[in-house]
Amino acid sequence: VSYRCAACGTPYPLSSHRFRCDCGSYLNVDDSELFGGQDLAGPPGGIWRYRKCFGLPENVTPVSMGEGNTPILTFEIDDAKLHLKMDFLQPSGSFKDRGASVLVSALKHTGVKQVVEDSSGNAGAALSAYAAAAGIGVTVFVPYYTQEGKVVQMKMYGANVLRVPGKRQDANIEALRAAQGCVYASHLWNPYFVRGLSSAAYEIWEKMGQELPQAVIVPVGSGGFLEGLHYGFCTLKRAGLAGSSPRLIGVQAARCAPIHYAFVNDMEDSTDIEEEKTIAEGIAVQRPPRARAVLAALRNSGGYTVTVEEGEITEAAKRLGRMGLFVEPTSASVLAAWLKIERRDREGALLVLTGSGLKAATTYGGLVGTVER
Amino acid sequence: VSYRCAACGTPYPLSSHRFRCDCGSYLNVDDSELFGGQDLAGPPGGIWRYRKCFGLPENVTPVSMGEGNTPILTFEIDDAKLHLKMDFLQPSGSFKDRGASVLVSALKHTGVKQVVEDSSGNAGAALSAYAAAAGIGVTVFVPYYTQEGKVVQMKMYGANVLRVPGKRQDANIEALRAAQGCVYASHLWNPYFVRGLSSAAYEIWEKMGQELPQAVIVPVGSGGFLEGLHYGFCTLKRAGLAGSSPRLIGVQAARCAPIHYAFVNDMEDSTDIEEEKTIAEGIAVQRPPRARAVLAALRNSGGYTVTVEEGEITEAAKRLGRMGLFVEPTSASVLAAWLKIERRDREGALLVLTGSGLKAATTYGGLVGTVER
Repeated sequence: VSYRCAACGTPYPLSSHRFRCDCGSYLNVDDSELFGGQDLAGPPGGIWRYRKCFGLPENVTPVSMGEGNTPILTFEIDDAKLHLKMDFLQPSGSFKDRGASVLVSALKHTGVKQVVEDSSGNAGAALSAYAAAAGIGVTVFVPYYTQEGKVVQMKMYGANVLRVPGKRQDANIEALRAAQGCVYASHLWNPYFVRGLSSAAYEIWEKMGQELPQAVIVPVGSGGFLEGLHYGFCTLKRAGLAGSSPRLIGVQAARCAPIHYAFVNDMEDSTDIEEEKTIAEGIAVQRPPRARAVLAALRNSGGYTVTVEEGEITEAAKRLGRMGLFVEPTSASVLAAWLKIERRDREGALLVLTGSGLKAATTYGGLVGTVER
Repeated sequence: VSYRCAACGTPYPLSSHRFRCDCGSYLNVDDSELFGGQDLAGPPGGIWRYRKCFGLPENVTPVSMGEGNTPILTFEIDDAKLHLKMDFLQPSGSFKDRGASVLVSALKHTGVKQVVEDSSGNAGAALSAYAAAAGIGVTVFVPYYTQEGKVVQMKMYGANVLRVPGKRQDANIEALRAAQGCVYASHLWNPYFVRGLSSAAYEIWEKMGQELPQAVIVPVGSGGFLEGLHYGFCTLKRAGLAGSSPRLIGVQAARCAPIHYAFVNDMEDSTDIEEEKTIAEGIAVQRPPRARAVLAALRNSGGYTVTVEEGEITEAAKRLGRMGLFVEPTSASVLAAWLKIERRDREGALLVLTGSGLKAATTYGGLVGTVER
């Protein structure tokens, strides 16, 4: 048994290649092993140092390309200190490589040769990169508005990229349709992807001198990163290595904020909300399948959600640029949020910079112009 | 004294902001301190761990953003093992961040507020990023063909970017003109930039278990990276930490190969050669000012030059993509070279991947297409 349904408890083996339970719910990784300090031993560098927390069978061979081990920088803005985790310094240019490395390792272990996925770009690029390294074929359905750079990147990895007219959700529907005859390697659904993302939590703890910050601010689309971070922080707590989890602050674009809507309305799951096009394309997920887990993580950590407007995101991206940091709009949303929250949560907060600005060259070209002769 | 002329020995202080000697030659860092194993002590991660080798005054405060500490992956192609150093995993997306961090730290130390530079893109982006972090204003002259993504990136860092009609060399001429009334922060000329690049040599030695590979293959435009690596390997040897330097193999595009021409013709300096437009824009440097040092490093290490054709570069970029690695054409040139050299030098060679493929999205878009509906 590797998977267990989060709602009804039905178990599934790794080889079932299920992306959800027959009851419709998402699955969790089914592991009950105790996790101790000794499991973090070994040389630093790379997410596989934390493999004990991934819940994979021990004989799985990692598909790894140097992901993780990203630096944390410290800045001061308006007399408050903040930490920025440079999590875009990954092989494919975003934090998703953490998840893709673990998910693709599981896929390869079970002999999968071909998968489908839907993505606004970063997860598709990460999956395509690791699948290429593992010799697995990939078809990625992307929304029509996906940045050219991300599409080119996926194609260079050898992926079959199909643009879907309509919204992000429509790419999802196409992938679900294709998944009926193929393995759906979904970063939105798969719990091993989330476990891979949890590696960032252990890194934060280690790089901050085995301490945790008061608050961690992270962009929320599907919410997998927030769920993964919470899992990681709780694991550290269970192992007696850290105190309580940092307050997790999830950032959504005001134009597509289903998790925020559910959070402020005390709902346990997200509901259908209106989706408008946002510059933060990486967090435009209208129906996050693991929303229950994400909402629970937010509440359990004493955290909350923040929405940011388009102009706030753009301003934050420019501000980061003037600090020497070039990140995509989705990433810049965390600084936009940090500038809005109460001072109590600002001081000493850690913000995760999730994607390279090079992925959004077209968008930023429209902002700053490109040609001067 | 910080600088000393490589030709006539004239000394200059750091505060002179000279980019060359009155005699016309490039300058070297003037340090004679012995470098020992104890100077590599301290926690791993980041280039400033090796600051003793940079030859900067001790009271210089680093302008650092988590550059360096890039992973090394091992692959097997055609039954030969090769190592790939993922040196594009840097804040601005290329190895140049190593040099920019050290050069900008020196500039800030001496109170510089405004600089000019010329670049095909990567050095300009790196300099713009670190200058932004240091509060220094930058004007970058770029050739007309520079990738849009790189221009947008520099502008997001707040740089003033000016496209120059003509060839790479024409941007250089414009920068030299502007430098008459301003500090010319040239990655082509400045020896501290080269010292920053040398940090990769110490990393290779540390990450390979305090051993060095037989051969290191690196793209050569100005040749600063090759010169820096050689300096680093020689420093390790002088300190008794490693044996002889790896054979350094410098790769140039067949369309712009002044160092190669000088090398195969037993010349001590490069001479004016024809420059044609190449897809490997990062190594199209027609008149490399430090060519003497680069040629000496090549010969001293028992290495040599290799030229690669446009089609070979493109094929290598695609091949790397199918391995899960997305790098710019300039970077892919090292695999193109590796595939051509003698088997003796192939086995166990280390290839440096210098720039992210995301920087060349426009070029690759033309190669693989972008839109499918």
